[in-house]
Amino acid sequence: MKVLVLNSGSSSVKFQFYDTSLEAIKGGSEKQLAKGIVEKIGEKTSIRKIECNGKPPYKKEDPIADHTQAIRTIIDMLSDSEYGIIKDKTEIDAVGHRVVHGGETFTHSCLIDEKVYDKIKECIPLAPLHNPHNIKGYEISRDLLGKTPHVAVFDTAFHQTMAPSAFIYALPYDYYEKKRIRRYGFHGTSHRFVARRVGRLFNLAKDAFNVITAHLGNGASIAAVAKGKVVDTSMGFTPLEGLVMGTRCGDIDPAILMYLQENDGVNVAGLNKVLNKQSGLIGISGISNDMRELEKAAAENNARAKLAIDIFCYRIRKYIGAYAVAMGGVDFIVFTAGIGENSHIIRGEASKGLEAIGAKVDEAKNKSLNGKEGVFSTEDSKVKLCVIPTNEEILIAHDTVEAVSGLL
Amino acid sequence: MKVLVLNSGSSSVKFQFYDTSLEAIKGGSEKQLAKGIVEKIGEKTSIRKIECNGKPPYKKEDPIADHTQAIRTIIDMLSDSEYGIIKDKTEIDAVGHRVVHGGETFTHSCLIDEKVYDKIKECIPLAPLHNPHNIKGYEISRDLLGKTPHVAVFDTAFHQTMAPSAFIYALPYDYYEKKRIRRYGFHGTSHRFVARRVGRLFNLAKDAFNVITAHLGNGASIAAVAKGKVVDTSMGFTPLEGLVMGTRCGDIDPAILMYLQENDGVNVAGLNKVLNKQSGLIGISGISNDMRELEKAAAENNARAKLAIDIFCYRIRKYIGAYAVAMGGVDFIVFTAGIGENSHIIRGEASKGLEAIGAKVDEAKNKSLNGKEGVFSTEDSKVKLCVIPTNEEILIAHDTVEAVSGLL
Repeated sequence: MKVLVLNSGSSSVKFQFYDTSLEAIKGGSEKQLAKGIVEKIGEKTSIRKIECNGKPPYKKEDPIADHTQAIRTIIDMLSDSEYGIIKDKTEIDAVGHRVVHGGETFTHSCLIDEKVYDKIKECIPLAPLHNPHNIKGYEISRDLLGKTPHVAVFDTAFHQTMAPSAFIYALPYDYYEKKRIRRYGFHGTSHRFVARRVGRLFNLAKDAFNVITAHLGNGASIAAVAKGKVVDTSMGFTPLEGLVMGTRCGDIDPAILMYLQENDGVNVAGLNKVLNKQSGLIGISGISNDMRELEKAAAENNARAKLAIDIFCYRIRKYIGAYAVAMGGVDFIVFTAGIGENSHIIRGEASKGLEAIGAKVDEAKNKSLNGKEGVFSTEDSKVKLCVIPTNEEILIAHDTVEAVSGLL
Repeated sequence: MKVLVLNSGSSSVKFQFYDTSLEAIKGGSEKQLAKGIVEKIGEKTSIRKIECNGKPPYKKEDPIADHTQAIRTIIDMLSDSEYGIIKDKTEIDAVGHRVVHGGETFTHSCLIDEKVYDKIKECIPLAPLHNPHNIKGYEISRDLLGKTPHVAVFDTAFHQTMAPSAFIYALPYDYYEKKRIRRYGFHGTSHRFVARRVGRLFNLAKDAFNVITAHLGNGASIAAVAKGKVVDTSMGFTPLEGLVMGTRCGDIDPAILMYLQENDGVNVAGLNKVLNKQSGLIGISGISNDMRELEKAAAENNARAKLAIDIFCYRIRKYIGAYAVAMGGVDFIVFTAGIGENSHIIRGEASKGLEAIGAKVDEAKNKSLNGKEGVFSTEDSKVKLCVIPTNEEILIAHDTVEAVSGLL
């Protein structure tokens, strides 16, 4: 089955194209046929890119007016006789859509029918910057592709197993009941991918182990997954809460927002910009939101780059300790995503003090694992520290095959 | 040396009166001579109360116009021939003042001279609801008592040993440098008292152990104290952050404040009221901010009372795990203040999952300890779980003696 995976954002649409099947999923033999992006949609300098298996990569800068034209462009590129990989759009058997917010409605991926479509629209107020674009990606590809089935894969779904004690804030209770304010969690597809991968790597049933999964990219979150089910996660009502991120503050005293409004004359829009775009690593360091830049600056003894790294890692360590207790013990700790996969410095710093929960770092192994899958704890470490590269797109493809096959 | 301890709030002044000395402090033989309160200052139904050693308690309802009259009343009550304990005010050798906020200026208690007085006033913007009353208490008693020395004991001082990685938020760095926004922490005198008491109880030098101190009252905070120094604490820039409290929300996604302002038409004053007065235990349960009431309701199967207790305890457990990792291991966990000292239910629930860090509860011992000092972990528990009643006032008296004696 050939599956197109679409991630439709405000000004870009990313895509992957897979050849997979239920058997391929089990055996891990699915094949990526193509990947690419259309970006800067609506600008004069829109960019389209595709790279198909065994074909020369293709790139062009040329205005693309809107999302309809963007998705049409993707299908045209896939079908191109020179750099494409299919004859025409009828070869696309199914489409998997990343959808950011599934609220409390969606606890797993599912085929999009009229009812599901309406329910996804009901979640727009919870993710006004994301769901509308995800929905647009669906609508356009549905109109272009005729009877092809579409599947929605939600960032929030994996976290829906949390207990009320983890997802309810200590706010007036009707904020939850009437305003739907609760912890939802995000990056669910990534946390699910690496948690599942642990089971496969160590040949364990998913209900046979507890794992803490640290997704450390420009956005960052961490999850406690006990016996296959999420017990807690650091992102909350929105992706602002939790770990320090590239430009987001993560956890702060909520009174700071009121203090700034009362004493500094900043308004909500201003706060939103500061906390989402000017905080986190860039805020502390004043240098960059890119961890590679900060590691370079820290190596040159830049004090604020060092401080940004310290705070970033210290927050991760504290969440790991908290989640170990939340689960009453942990067997695996996984680092993934851009920083988690590629920075032994961050993994090493973020693992300091973990002897308190039975995890011991083997620094030589840690250094050898950048970009690779493997274990970097010592032989006698009770808890295994791992690097596992994430792959949200392949999990979207898998879910799409399973949903189309009636298995979800 | 006879020491008057004053805790001057917006509408009340609490006081204790001690007979103590450097020798008495060492030997633990200080004597409380009197305690009392003047409350509802400025109302028609102001109340004055005093209870002196060996004398009948005294209480009167009678208007007290302002703080000057309140402190004069305290001195008059102490000097009363029938229910008082001193001949006249010349018997007061020193006064210890609780001061909520010492900013980054004060790392320990100190004698108040002109310079210190000015520096405390500089901290008013950091605690506009508290420091002005604390300062007023000083000014009035200074004017009334002539040359008697006065000592300021700060709620924030004990936490000043935190490293920047623990006290700096992931906000633009100049929020710290220019606006003084950082984690300060509060309840420092209580955390210091119980951490010190651990050393005495187990005959350990203060740099020989790591302890997590959970101060659980209507306000609640938790601290990690490694080798006598605070490494981290849950209250932050203000006392709103951290644990779930009687009426305060503690940690929430900061984006919730922006969401409510944008979607619910609430303003900063409204938010302040909700997050400080209508959240926490009362917010979740809808019943009470008093844990005793909630335990009663939960025993009668009230679901939201149970939920409030669950969330309260779950948050404590997570902080304990986080702080165990932050210190690279912990030797003692202490529960103190109203709830911590008196509720075995909360101690039991808040200790669940702590096997992950080596602490095991002995439930029978736990039940036997309400209101008492003692250990409630099992014999083979690596980490000792303790109940230690706090006594901030006696520590203020001690600091006062030491400051007056030139030891601070």
